[in-house]
Amino acid sequence: MLGLYYDGELRLRDDLQVPEPGPGEALIKVMVAGICHTDLEIIKGYMDFTGIPGHEFVGVVEKADDPELVGLRVVGEINCACGVCPQCIEGKANHCPHRTTLGISGRNGAFAEYLTLPVANLHVVPDTLPLYNAVFVEPLAACFRITEQVHISPRLKVAVLGDGKLGLLVAQVMRLSGCALLAIGRHAHKLKILDRLGIRTVMETELELSERFDIVVECTGRPEGFELARRLIEPAGTIIQKSTFVDKVSMDISSMVVDEIKVVGSRCGPFGPAIRALLRGLVSVQELIDRRFPLEMGLQAFDYAARDESIKVILEMRTYPAEGLRPAGELEEEPVI
Amino acid sequence: MLGLYYDGELRLRDDLQVPEPGPGEALIKVMVAGICHTDLEIIKGYMDFTGIPGHEFVGVVEKADDPELVGLRVVGEINCACGVCPQCIEGKANHCPHRTTLGISGRNGAFAEYLTLPVANLHVVPDTLPLYNAVFVEPLAACFRITEQVHISPRLKVAVLGDGKLGLLVAQVMRLSGCALLAIGRHAHKLKILDRLGIRTVMETELELSERFDIVVECTGRPEGFELARRLIEPAGTIIQKSTFVDKVSMDISSMVVDEIKVVGSRCGPFGPAIRALLRGLVSVQELIDRRFPLEMGLQAFDYAARDESIKVILEMRTYPAEGLRPAGELEEEPVI
Repeated sequence: MLGLYYDGELRLRDDLQVPEPGPGEALIKVMVAGICHTDLEIIKGYMDFTGIPGHEFVGVVEKADDPELVGLRVVGEINCACGVCPQCIEGKANHCPHRTTLGISGRNGAFAEYLTLPVANLHVVPDTLPLYNAVFVEPLAACFRITEQVHISPRLKVAVLGDGKLGLLVAQVMRLSGCALLAIGRHAHKLKILDRLGIRTVMETELELSERFDIVVECTGRPEGFELARRLIEPAGTIIQKSTFVDKVSMDISSMVVDEIKVVGSRCGPFGPAIRALLRGLVSVQELIDRRFPLEMGLQAFDYAARDESIKVILEMRTYPAEGLRPAGELEEEPVI
Repeated sequence: MLGLYYDGELRLRDDLQVPEPGPGEALIKVMVAGICHTDLEIIKGYMDFTGIPGHEFVGVVEKADDPELVGLRVVGEINCACGVCPQCIEGKANHCPHRTTLGISGRNGAFAEYLTLPVANLHVVPDTLPLYNAVFVEPLAACFRITEQVHISPRLKVAVLGDGKLGLLVAQVMRLSGCALLAIGRHAHKLKILDRLGIRTVMETELELSERFDIVVECTGRPEGFELARRLIEPAGTIIQKSTFVDKVSMDISSMVVDEIKVVGSRCGPFGPAIRALLRGLVSVQELIDRRFPLEMGLQAFDYAARDESIKVILEMRTYPAEGLRPAGELEEEPVI
């Protein structure tokens, strides 16, 4: 099959094996896949990953033990846990030490014609959710991880740092809380998307450093982002750290003790709330897509995604079965709303 | 009056002015005062403090607008807030940006014959609470700040790093939760105090680094303590940072995001729970006192407190009015239990 492959260098290959699903797994034909900041870091060596990257996707189940699943559109949670270790038993499967992670660690990902995932990781995409909305379920779930970890009281002042793909989604989820919100970025055209949603925005260069926030969500993808978050946080406030990067950050721990600052690392989140928010039109995602590329142009897609002005780049698999889809409505699924 | 004074050098002075209480303040004759790790940092230049250090004390009210207070034994909260700024109004007076802090910032402290504090900061010491227990109310309150900030579920595995004054108190407060507890230190004779309370202890040199904890409380007073805490924490665990020190710490933020680690800075705490715990005999403090010095020997007391083997050093004011005390029971006080 065709796919992107990284082994120190990202290449387009047409000699990749269609994966064979293991026990409890489904074979999924990928329809579309989103390029994420993590993918850009991975092709710089982050996580020492070798294989097919990509973890944001919508696909169609082509093979599964349960024939009811075949033909359905699905999205998939990316962490594949062992299910039997203490972490898994305590409900922290996302932190299973034996886990593989789709396109990030120990498991081939979505930038190819096919992928496999455990059936337990799959979420059926409701018929009414358009394909190019559904491809945002995974990154949007990561935003709802924040509200799962930290209570965003509607009285609070919240700042979101960074106007990349993730920052624009995080700001929209914070907006739903009713909090006083400021999105801080470096790109007028990206902030404009939030302006239109009634979110107050400011260019980082024009930021008043006297303003302080109860919660700062750090989504800049840059180590300096943490320092800015520290400067903007109120005493007893919470910094939610979303960005990952290779560099270490130097921290003045004593001042964090005196000011009783909390720092919360935040990663993958729950798919259900993300699907519901998209179905209810609470989050605006299609505007974030600035370019679609066919898989054959995957290398160009990565080049484009790495550009400073780019927001969200989508890879399309030209071979996806637009007609053979079964409507999800036929299934007796747990309602997602 | 006699007192210790720091202005780049710690000196014993007998020419200090007895302070004049401001509006709403009481004049307190100090009976005893404890030397804390923060005091040792202050005489190295921490907080750029100039004046009389000392913030752990028991004293007698000698002057106050309310005559009912005069003659009573009191302990005092150390942060003196403005009461009118947004922080104060939101109930975060400990983070008032205009605050002074007894013997730490902008306000003379307890290592002298007299101090002043706002009456609102005072807590009457119940008659049944011995003097050398009451002097631990302030540091013990800082331990209860942890349980105020973070839910210590009885199912959790908790490690306390550091067997100094604070670590020995923190371990005792963690013990009350019913959690699985390990205290990690560098001094067999200090850990022995916890052993006797049924707390599992281990010397840092003999620590199995394969063991992981849901909560790690960092009380080592050393920058390396944070790195050890990071190595010991479970994914999705919480590091409670108590130590303050001058040096910065280098942090691998990405791994904290991937493991979803929380870091919580923790400082001063509520006096009520500390007084109740002491009255109920839930915490053992007298064993922590290894030396008492009269105020006249304050410099020697500091030297002794800085020794590695020392735990808690108490300064005694020889002139305290042992007989003129009024029993607190006469007052119609809010019950403290």
